[in-house]
Amino acid sequence: GRWHRIHYAAIKWLFALLIGIGTGLSAFVINVAVENFSGWKFIATFAIMRHSYFAGLVVYVLFNATLVFSSVFIVTNFAPAAAGSGIPELKGYLNGIDTPGILLFRTLIGKILGSIGSVGGGLALGKEGPLVHTGACIASLVGQGGSTKYFINWQWLRVFKNDRDRRDLVTIGCAAGVAAAFRAPVGGVLFALEEVTSWWRSQLLWRVFFTSAVVAVVVRTAMSWCAHGNCGHFGSGGFIIWDISGGQDDYSFYELWPMAMLGIIGGLLGALFNQLTLYLSSYRRNVLHKKGDRVKIIEACLVSLITSVLSFGLPLLTTCTPCPDPVRYPDIVCPRPSKHYGNYVTFHCSSENQYNDLATIFFNTPDDAIRNLFSTKTVHEYSAQSLFIFMVMFYLLAVITYGIAVPSGQFVPGIMIGATYGRLVGMLVVSLYKKDDIDEGTYALLGAASFLGGSMRMTVSLCVIMVEITNNLNLLPLIMLVLLISKAVGDIFNMGFYEQQAHLRGIPLLESTPKRFMRKLSARDALRANKVVNFSRIAQVSHIVAVLCSNNHNGFPVIEELPNGQTLVIGLILRSYLLVLLQSKADFQDTPIAGDDRGRVTIRYSATDFVKPVSSKGLSINDIHLTPQELEMYLDLKPFVNPSPYMVPEDMSLTKVYNLFRQLGLRHVLVVPRPSRLTGLITRKDLLLPEVLEETSTELSSTR
Amino acid sequence: GRWHRIHYAAIKWLFALLIGIGTGLSAFVINVAVENFSGWKFIATFAIMRHSYFAGLVVYVLFNATLVFSSVFIVTNFAPAAAGSGIPELKGYLNGIDTPGILLFRTLIGKILGSIGSVGGGLALGKEGPLVHTGACIASLVGQGGSTKYFINWQWLRVFKNDRDRRDLVTIGCAAGVAAAFRAPVGGVLFALEEVTSWWRSQLLWRVFFTSAVVAVVVRTAMSWCAHGNCGHFGSGGFIIWDISGGQDDYSFYELWPMAMLGIIGGLLGALFNQLTLYLSSYRRNVLHKKGDRVKIIEACLVSLITSVLSFGLPLLTTCTPCPDPVRYPDIVCPRPSKHYGNYVTFHCSSENQYNDLATIFFNTPDDAIRNLFSTKTVHEYSAQSLFIFMVMFYLLAVITYGIAVPSGQFVPGIMIGATYGRLVGMLVVSLYKKDDIDEGTYALLGAASFLGGSMRMTVSLCVIMVEITNNLNLLPLIMLVLLISKAVGDIFNMGFYEQQAHLRGIPLLESTPKRFMRKLSARDALRANKVVNFSRIAQVSHIVAVLCSNNHNGFPVIEELPNGQTLVIGLILRSYLLVLLQSKADFQDTPIAGDDRGRVTIRYSATDFVKPVSSKGLSINDIHLTPQELEMYLDLKPFVNPSPYMVPEDMSLTKVYNLFRQLGLRHVLVVPRPSRLTGLITRKDLLLPEVLEETSTELSSTR
Repeated sequence: GRWHRIHYAAIKWLFALLIGIGTGLSAFVINVAVENFSGWKFIATFAIMRHSYFAGLVVYVLFNATLVFSSVFIVTNFAPAAAGSGIPELKGYLNGIDTPGILLFRTLIGKILGSIGSVGGGLALGKEGPLVHTGACIASLVGQGGSTKYFINWQWLRVFKNDRDRRDLVTIGCAAGVAAAFRAPVGGVLFALEEVTSWWRSQLLWRVFFTSAVVAVVVRTAMSWCAHGNCGHFGSGGFIIWDISGGQDDYSFYELWPMAMLGIIGGLLGALFNQLTLYLSSYRRNVLHKKGDRVKIIEACLVSLITSVLSFGLPLLTTCTPCPDPVRYPDIVCPRPSKHYGNYVTFHCSSENQYNDLATIFFNTPDDAIRNLFSTKTVHEYSAQSLFIFMVMFYLLAVITYGIAVPSGQFVPGIMIGATYGRLVGMLVVSLYKKDDIDEGTYALLGAASFLGGSMRMTVSLCVIMVEITNNLNLLPLIMLVLLISKAVGDIFNMGFYEQQAHLRGIPLLESTPKRFMRKLSARDALRANKVVNFSRIAQVSHIVAVLCSNNHNGFPVIEELPNGQTLVIGLILRSYLLVLLQSKADFQDTPIAGDDRGRVTIRYSATDFVKPVSSKGLSINDIHLTPQELEMYLDLKPFVNPSPYMVPEDMSLTKVYNLFRQLGLRHVLVVPRPSRLTGLITRKDLLLPEVLEETSTELSSTR
Repeated sequence: GRWHRIHYAAIKWLFALLIGIGTGLSAFVINVAVENFSGWKFIATFAIMRHSYFAGLVVYVLFNATLVFSSVFIVTNFAPAAAGSGIPELKGYLNGIDTPGILLFRTLIGKILGSIGSVGGGLALGKEGPLVHTGACIASLVGQGGSTKYFINWQWLRVFKNDRDRRDLVTIGCAAGVAAAFRAPVGGVLFALEEVTSWWRSQLLWRVFFTSAVVAVVVRTAMSWCAHGNCGHFGSGGFIIWDISGGQDDYSFYELWPMAMLGIIGGLLGALFNQLTLYLSSYRRNVLHKKGDRVKIIEACLVSLITSVLSFGLPLLTTCTPCPDPVRYPDIVCPRPSKHYGNYVTFHCSSENQYNDLATIFFNTPDDAIRNLFSTKTVHEYSAQSLFIFMVMFYLLAVITYGIAVPSGQFVPGIMIGATYGRLVGMLVVSLYKKDDIDEGTYALLGAASFLGGSMRMTVSLCVIMVEITNNLNLLPLIMLVLLISKAVGDIFNMGFYEQQAHLRGIPLLESTPKRFMRKLSARDALRANKVVNFSRIAQVSHIVAVLCSNNHNGFPVIEELPNGQTLVIGLILRSYLLVLLQSKADFQDTPIAGDDRGRVTIRYSATDFVKPVSSKGLSINDIHLTPQELEMYLDLKPFVNPSPYMVPEDMSLTKVYNLFRQLGLRHVLVVPRPSRLTGLITRKDLLLPEVLEETSTELSSTR
C-alpha cells in the first residue's frame, strides 16, 4: 500500500545516508592510520639515521615489513577476497556475475586493516581501489541489515527484496568510495556511471549523487576536527587532494605538441603496464599462489624488502642539490624542517643548505610524493636524472607489487609514474622555450592523467576526478586532450586494466559494444550445442535434484503441457528459488496435479526468503538433504516462475540480443521460434497511458 | 570491408571535430554580436541621458524594439521552428519523435540571428538554450552533408546510413552547444547524458567528450584573438563565465539551514515558474498564436516595450547609494567609469560618489548582471529593497517572455532570479551571524543553483555546469545539497520545465521510470482498442496506398502466409520505406508471386535512399501519384522489412515493456502470443563468443 511505499522510499534514502557516512568514516580511519604509521616511521628513521645509516635502513625495512606482513597475514588467513583492488570483481558483480566472498563483512574488515598495512608499509600501491571496495562492502552490509555470522543484525532494515535493489546499493557504495578516496563527489558519481555499472537508471543517479554529497560533508567535518591536532600526524600531510591552483592558467599553442606527446607516452606505458601486470598476475594465479598462503606471505615480504631498500638506497646514491636562492624565492622553505611534510627533503646531504631531490619523492608517503611532484613554482626542483631513475624503478615496483596478496589500488602508482614523466617532459619544454609561464607541475598533472588514461581507459570520470583532486578547472580541456590521446593509443594494444584483470579471473564482463562478427550471427548461433534444460510445470523432486546436480545453470525455462496437448512456455525459474523450495519442502505434493492457488505463496514465503544473501555463500544443492519419500514427491513450479522473462525470436540478429543484454542488465533471455501470430504493436504513444486508464485497467486485470 | 570500416570511423571523428568547430564558432559569433549591440545601446543611452531622460528612454526602447522585432520577424517569416529554446523538441527527437523542421538549415540561421536579436534586445531570456539547438542543427547538417535546398552539398560526407548515427550526431551537437554556451565541457557531456538523451552508448560518450574538448579549444582561441581588441565591445564584458573563486572557501554548520532554505525557496519558485509558463504557453498555443504571425510580432514588441520601460524606469525610482569607503576597500572602483563594464553603475545619481544598485543589475546585459550578482567582497552592494523589486519584476518578465516567438533560453533568467533571492538570503545570514567570512556572492550562486534545480530538475549536469561557470570547486557539496532539496521540493508539485513543455507540445516523452500502475498491466492492456494494421508479404499497391492514407502509423507488421497455410510474422516495415517504394515504382510486379532475390535490392537502392532526410519534411503519401494500372500491381515487401524487431509476449508486465522501450530507445515493439515452444536459453556466457567462432559461423550463415 501507500504506507509501505513511503517506508520503502525512506529506507532507500536512509541507506544512501548510512553508506555515505560509513564510507566517509572508513576513508578517514584509513587515512589517519596510514599517515600516523608513516609519520612515526619516517621520524624514527630520520632520528636513527643521524647516528647510523645502516641502523636507519634496518629500522625502516623492519617497520615496513611488519606492516606489510600484518596486511598479508590478515588477507591470507582471514579475508582472501580482500586481496587486490576489488574493482574488477565489483564490475563483475554489477554486471551480473557473483564472485564468492567479495561483499562479506570479513572482506570489509580485511580491506580496511589490510590497506592500512600495505599503504602504511610503503608499497607501490594506493588506497583508492580498496576504498571503492570498502564502500561497496558497507553498502552491501547495510542492504542486508548486517551480517548474521558476526551478530550484527538489524532486522528492521531487511526490506530489500530483490537483487536489483542490492546491486543499486553496491553501485552507490562504489561511488561513495571514489568520492571518499579522492574527495571528488562528482567524480564518484561518474565513476559509478562510466566504469562500474553496466547499466544505469536515472532514479539511481539521484541517490548516488546524494551519497557522494554526504561523503563530502563527513570527510570535511572529520578533517576540520583533525585540524585542531586531534589526529597525530594526520592533518599536516592531509587527505588526498593536490591543489595545483598555483599552476598554469593558460597555455599556448606550441605547448599542444608536448602535451600530445604526453598522451602518446601515457598510452604506450599504460598499455605496457597492463600487459606486464597481466602476465605476472596470470603467473601468480596459475602457479605461484597455488602453492599456498605461506608463499603469498613470503612474496609480499620480499616485495616490501625490495621496495624499502630501493627507496632508502637510491637517494643515498644521488648527490644533493643546493637550495634555491632564498632571496629570489622567499616562499620556498629549504631544506624541509624535521618533523614536517613537504618539499626539499634533506637526506644524506653534506651541507645544511642542500636537499635530496630523489628522497623528496622516493622517501616519502605516496600522497606527499605526489604533492611534491605536482608542486608548482619550485624552479627545477628535480634533476632529470633523478626523475628518470625514480620513474623506471617505481614502474617496475608497481608492476611487481600489483597482484601480491594485499589490498592494492592502481590510482596512486599510476599518478606517481605519470607525474614523473610528465615533469620530465615539462622540463624539456621549459628548456626548449625558456618561458616563465610554463610550469613543470602542470605537466606532471597532465602526465598523471595520461598514464591513468593509458592504463585504465576511463574518460569522463577520470577527467573529473583529476580536476577535483587538483582543484584547477582551467586545465580541463588539456586533461581531456591528453586523455583522448592516451586512451586511443592504449586501445591499439590491449584492453583496459580492469577489463584485463576481470578477463583473467574468468569474470565474463560484457563489453559496451557487441563484437563486429555478431552482426552476421543470429540468436540461434549463440546457443551452440547447448541443450536447453527445461522443467515441466509439475516436476518430480528427484528430477529437480538430478538436474541441479548435473549442471550449474542458474535459470531454467518452465514449460506447461496444456490439457489439449499443446505446450506453453510459462516462464523461467532460478536455481536459487529451486534450492529454497527444496530446502523448505513446504510445497511438495504427492500427486502431479497442478494447484491453482497463488495466494498461498505469499503466506508461506516472505519475498526475502528467495533473495540470495550477498554476503554469504548461499545455498548449494549439496546442503540439502531429502529422504527417498520426499524425492518421490512433486513440486508445482508455476507460482515461483518469473512469468515474463525477455524473449527473442531465434533468428534475431545477435547484435540486437547483445544490446538487450547490456542495456537491460539481463542474465537470461529465452530464445523462441518466430511467432506465427501477432497480437498487436506497441508504440511510444501506447505507453503514455493516461492516469484514467489506471482504474479501469486494474479492474480488467483483476477480473481476468 | 576493412577499408570501409576505417573510412566510416574516420568520418565519425571528422564529424565530431566539425560539430565542435561549428558550434564553438556559432557561440562566438552570437556572443560578439550580442555584446556589441548591447554595448552600443548602453553607450548611446547613457550619452543621450545626460541631456534628457526621456530622449534616453526613447532611444533605449527603440533600440531594443528594433532588435526584438528583427528577431521575431525572422522567426515568424523564415524559421518558425527556431522559436523557443528547442530543448523539449530535441529531447523528443532523441527520444524517437520527430518534430517537423527543428533541424533544418533555415532553423539554424533563424536561431543564430534570432537569439542575437532577442538577447541583444534586452529581453528576460538567455542564449544558452538556443545554442544547444544551434549545436544540434549543425550536427544534423554535417551528418547529412549539407542542405540540398540551399546548395550546400558535400556528397562525400553522406556515409551515414541510419537513423541511429544521425541521432548520435545530434546528441553530440547538444553537448557541444552546452559546452559552448557555458564554457563547460564536462557539463556539456553530462547534460547530453542526463537531460537530452533517453539512452546512451558508451562508445558515444567518447566522441561527445572529444567534441566538448574541441569546443573549449575553439572558444578559447577565439577569445584570445579578441583580447587584442578585435571584437569591439566583446572581451571586456566577456563570455559567460562568472568567476567567484574569491568567494567563500568554507562553510560552517550553522550555514546549512539557510542553504537548505534556499533549496526550498528554489523548489517552490521553480515549480511555480513551471506552472505559470505552462499556463501561458498553453494559452498562447491554443488561442493567441493561432491568430497569425502579426499577433506574434505585436506580442513580442509589446513584451520588449514592457521590459525596456521597467528596466529603465525602476532604477529611476530608486535612490542612489554612496560608494563604499575607498580607503577601507581600495579594490572597489565606484562609480563605474563610463564605457566600462562591471559593478557600481551610476544612473540618475545626484552626487559623483554614488551608484544605483538597481541599475547595476537591471540596466545591464544579463551576463554582466549575473556577474554583478555573484560578485564577492562587495560589502552590501545591494539594498534588500532593490533586490526584492528586481526579483519580483524579473520573475514576472521571465514568465511573460517565455513563449513569445523568438529564440529563448531559460538558464540565464533562472540564474538571475535565483541569484537575487540567494543574495537576499545571504544578506539575512550576514546580518544574523555578523561574520566576515560569509559572502553574499556565494549565496547568490547557491540561489541560482536552487532555482535551476527547482525548475529544470537536473542534478549532476547542472551541478557540474554551476561549478564550471563559477570556477570554484569548493562549493560543490553545497551546490549538491541545494540541488537535492530544490529538486525534491519541486517534484512534489509538477514535472520539470522541459518535460512540461514537451508534454504541452504533444511530444510523447517517456519518463525515466514507468508509472506505478503499469506493474498491474500487461502488454496486451497497452494495445487498448487499437486494431493492428498488418500487411501480407505480397501486398497490392492500392491496398498499401489505402492503408497509408487511412492512418498515420509509422510501422506496420508484415505477415507471410506459408504454402502449408500457416502464417509467420516476418518483420516490420516502416512507413518511410513504403513511401520510397511507392515513389520509385521499380519494385512493382504484375503478379502476387513472391520473389526470392534479395540481391536486387542492394542494386536498385542504396541504403541512403531509405533514410528520412532530417532537415526536410520528408515524403508524404500525398506527394505520390500513381496511375490506375500501377495501383493494380503488387509489391513484395519481404526484402524491405526489418526482420527482427523486438517482440514481447502479450502477458509481459507493462513495466518490463516500458523499460525495454526506454533503455533501447525503441519506437515499435511487436506483441505476440506466448510461445508454445522454446529453442533455447541465452546467458551472458553465450555472448562471450570466442573469436574462433567467427569464421565457422560466417560460413554457416552464408550457406543457410
